[in-house]
Amino acid sequence: MSAGRLLGVGVGPGDPELLTLKAMRAVGEADVIAHFAKAGCVGHSRRIVAPHLRAGVAELPLYYPVTTELPKDCDGYRDAMRGFYDDAAVTIAGHLEAGRKVAVICEGDPLFYGSYMHLHARLSPRYATEIVAGVTGMSGCWSAAGMPIAQGDDVFTVLPATLPESELARRLAEADAAVVMKVGRHLPKLRRALASSGRLPRAIYVERGTMAEEKMIPLAAKLDDEAPYFAVVLVPGWEERP
Amino acid sequence: MSAGRLLGVGVGPGDPELLTLKAMRAVGEADVIAHFAKAGCVGHSRRIVAPHLRAGVAELPLYYPVTTELPKDCDGYRDAMRGFYDDAAVTIAGHLEAGRKVAVICEGDPLFYGSYMHLHARLSPRYATEIVAGVTGMSGCWSAAGMPIAQGDDVFTVLPATLPESELARRLAEADAAVVMKVGRHLPKLRRALASSGRLPRAIYVERGTMAEEKMIPLAAKLDDEAPYFAVVLVPGWEERP
Repeated sequence: MSAGRLLGVGVGPGDPELLTLKAMRAVGEADVIAHFAKAGCVGHSRRIVAPHLRAGVAELPLYYPVTTELPKDCDGYRDAMRGFYDDAAVTIAGHLEAGRKVAVICEGDPLFYGSYMHLHARLSPRYATEIVAGVTGMSGCWSAAGMPIAQGDDVFTVLPATLPESELARRLAEADAAVVMKVGRHLPKLRRALASSGRLPRAIYVERGTMAEEKMIPLAAKLDDEAPYFAVVLVPGWEERP
Repeated sequence: MSAGRLLGVGVGPGDPELLTLKAMRAVGEADVIAHFAKAGCVGHSRRIVAPHLRAGVAELPLYYPVTTELPKDCDGYRDAMRGFYDDAAVTIAGHLEAGRKVAVICEGDPLFYGSYMHLHARLSPRYATEIVAGVTGMSGCWSAAGMPIAQGDDVFTVLPATLPESELARRLAEADAAVVMKVGRHLPKLRRALASSGRLPRAIYVERGTMAEEKMIPLAAKLDDEAPYFAVVLVPGWEERP
């Protein structure tokens, strides 16, 4: 083990106040702050922690090599992403070898569908690593909606909208409560799957939950099928609520 | 709407540093702090917020009327719990009618399998209500384990261990990643369901994640079937991890 330390730091769903005390401390103590972002953009995670950075702290922005949503089974995409994570891990390993504390700040929770996991898989076997759990994006969404999501013995499921329509419909029908992620261009298909599984009347569409630009509407009342990649659909459970 | 305000405040999984800045502020600004607890006990949520309470703030402990785990379909249990939540809602409504800000502090996230939801269902239609999302217990567990739980297009499912064995096995086999809650006396059955679904080798048993008394062990290496009600079993996904 090197003297360095890797921290995967969840910074929550977007509202800067949904940062934890632990994340605030981790960010303030780090020698290097790494953050994923689209090329040319300041990521949400960087904006959330901005007030808590030490003056002059080293920053390591990690710019994704692709900016559009590509099919996962496209070899070019896979190779580009693998190379990107490999290179990022090598750069971070350099800081760790030099004994530095590197905080990788992550929207939501670091180990729940996050880019950080690709660094964690490459680095945690070799370096001292700590995870600071964060409020997930989906918690931010149902909290902003004031919508109890799951209770008692409910089965709760997170589904990617990328699944085939029949598979989405079957899994929605079998779950008491669900969150569908990566909605984007899959919204027309998702809408049909929600209708055929009987879940459309309960479905709530959320964009940018807890952020200033938050949008929230019952899906049945949303008249268009425009949706960004990061939009989610909530299907609340707890059928027996009083 | 009354001048009062109801706040459902998530205080995270147990580590007092996993409190958010927003929860800290909500607790500091509240006129009344309500918290669920077993009779005669100080709940975890109360311990987590202790350093942030205003001197002399009013406290409203809500003691559960039963202390043992009873079958959900037992009428006596249902009636006792319903009466308890009804009474708690009436007491809180009194504070809200008097224009007070009442913060109900909740372990984990308020709208994810939490007792607060019973108050929310009764009071939010009548009073101004705000939810402060929190880090869930399950995020605390997989973070403490340093174990990436779900990635990419994984289907992630939360299952109660109360399900019948065949149903548990079927749902475990169908999910890429899962968290099983309410393990307690269901551990022998859960162990069989994990074995028959092929998930036992990946399963991790966690008690009191992020707390001082945390216990964590691969389930296959746990030799006894002793488990408290709040123990969870993690089944990490992300099969393709590098």
